[in-house]
Amino acid sequence: MTSRQSWTFPELKMSLPQWISNALPERGHQFDSDESKMMLAITLSKLNCEYGTGGPFGAAIFNAKTGTLVAPGVNLVQSLGISGAHAEMVSIALAQKTLGFLDLGSDPNTSYELFSSTEPCAMCMGCITWSGITRLVCGANDADARAIGFDEGVKALNWIEQYKQRGISVDLGICQEKAASVLSKYKEHGGLIYNGRASIFN
Amino acid sequence: MTSRQSWTFPELKMSLPQWISNALPERGHQFDSDESKMMLAITLSKLNCEYGTGGPFGAAIFNAKTGTLVAPGVNLVQSLGISGAHAEMVSIALAQKTLGFLDLGSDPNTSYELFSSTEPCAMCMGCITWSGITRLVCGANDADARAIGFDEGVKALNWIEQYKQRGISVDLGICQEKAASVLSKYKEHGGLIYNGRASIFN
Repeated sequence: MTSRQSWTFPELKMSLPQWISNALPERGHQFDSDESKMMLAITLSKLNCEYGTGGPFGAAIFNAKTGTLVAPGVNLVQSLGISGAHAEMVSIALAQKTLGFLDLGSDPNTSYELFSSTEPCAMCMGCITWSGITRLVCGANDADARAIGFDEGVKALNWIEQYKQRGISVDLGICQEKAASVLSKYKEHGGLIYNGRASIFN
Repeated sequence: MTSRQSWTFPELKMSLPQWISNALPERGHQFDSDESKMMLAITLSKLNCEYGTGGPFGAAIFNAKTGTLVAPGVNLVQSLGISGAHAEMVSIALAQKTLGFLDLGSDPNTSYELFSSTEPCAMCMGCITWSGITRLVCGANDADARAIGFDEGVKALNWIEQYKQRGISVDLGICQEKAASVLSKYKEHGGLIYNGRASIFN
C-alpha cells in the first residue's frame, strides 16, 4: 500500500498595497460631495496603475451619514493571481471586516455607499447586492471599460432597475471623463487587459 | 496640530475548514463521471452545514482531462464575515493559486470544469467568466435555493446562452434531488438565511 497523499491548499490572502495609506486623507476626514468621494476612487485607480499593483480600477466605501471613508479598494487581480480580486470586491470585504458585520444595510445609525471608478462588472454587481450597500456611484461606464478591451461580463440589461427594487440606488457618470481618462492611459501605456478568456475577446 | 491618524486595514484571509481534507479522496483519485464529481460538491455542502462552517453550498473544480480534483470550495460567508466568500469563489481562487495561473482556460493540455452543488448566484456567475473555466455543472437550481429563502441575485435571464457564446458550457440538474435535499434540511434545522438584505427578502 502506498501512503495516503494528503491535501494541502494555499491560504488565500488579500492585502492592500502599501502605498494605499499615503494616498488616503487623515482618518475621520469628512468628504463633502459625491465628486470628492469619486475623486478618491479615481486617484486609487490611477495610483494602482502607476505602482503596478493591478488594473486601472479603484473603489471606496463611505459612511453615508458622516461622509467618512470606511474601506478603499483597488484591483489586485494580477498581483494576487485571483480573478475575483476586483476593486469593489476588495473594498466590500474590507468594509465588512473593518466594521465587524456582514450586512452593511443593518446599521441603524447610517447606510453605506460604494464609489467605483468604473461601473461594476457582472461579478461585482452581484456582490454588491449581498453586501447591504444601499447606494452605488460610478465614474466611467461599461462602454469606457469595453473601449480599452475590458469585458464587463454577463449583466442583466435592466440591472439598475432591479437594484432599485432591492433598495439600492445607482448614480452613473460622476467625474466620468477623469475616470475614463485613467482607463485610456492604462491602455496607451500597454497595460495588460486580463479578461479570463483574453484569447476570445481581444 | 494633532498627529495624523494612520490607517490600518485588516488582512483578508480565506482558509478552508480543517475538516475538508478528510472529506476528500486521495490526491490523484480519478473521478469517472459527472455524478461522482457532483457528489463530492454535494458532500461538501452537507458537511459544511454539519460542521457549522457556512451555508449549504459546496463546489469543486476538476481537471477535465484527468478527472482529478484541483480545488474544493465551501461557502464561508458566516465564518469569515465576508459576503463574497461563496463556495464557487473560494474554489476558483484556490484553483488559480494552486495551479499558479490566472486563466484556467489557457492550459494547452486540459480544461477545467466547476461543479457547484447549487446553480451560481449572480456574483459567482460573473466570476466564472473571469476564471477561464469552460464548463459549469450544477446540482440544485435557482428555484431550489429560492425555495428555502436564498436569493440568487440579479442574473440575466439568458445567461446560459451568453455563456455558450463565451465558450462555457452549462449542465443543470446533475444529482439535483440530492443537492436540493441538503438545502431543505439546512432550512429545516434552522440554518441562517444570510442574504445581504435579509430584512427585505424574508
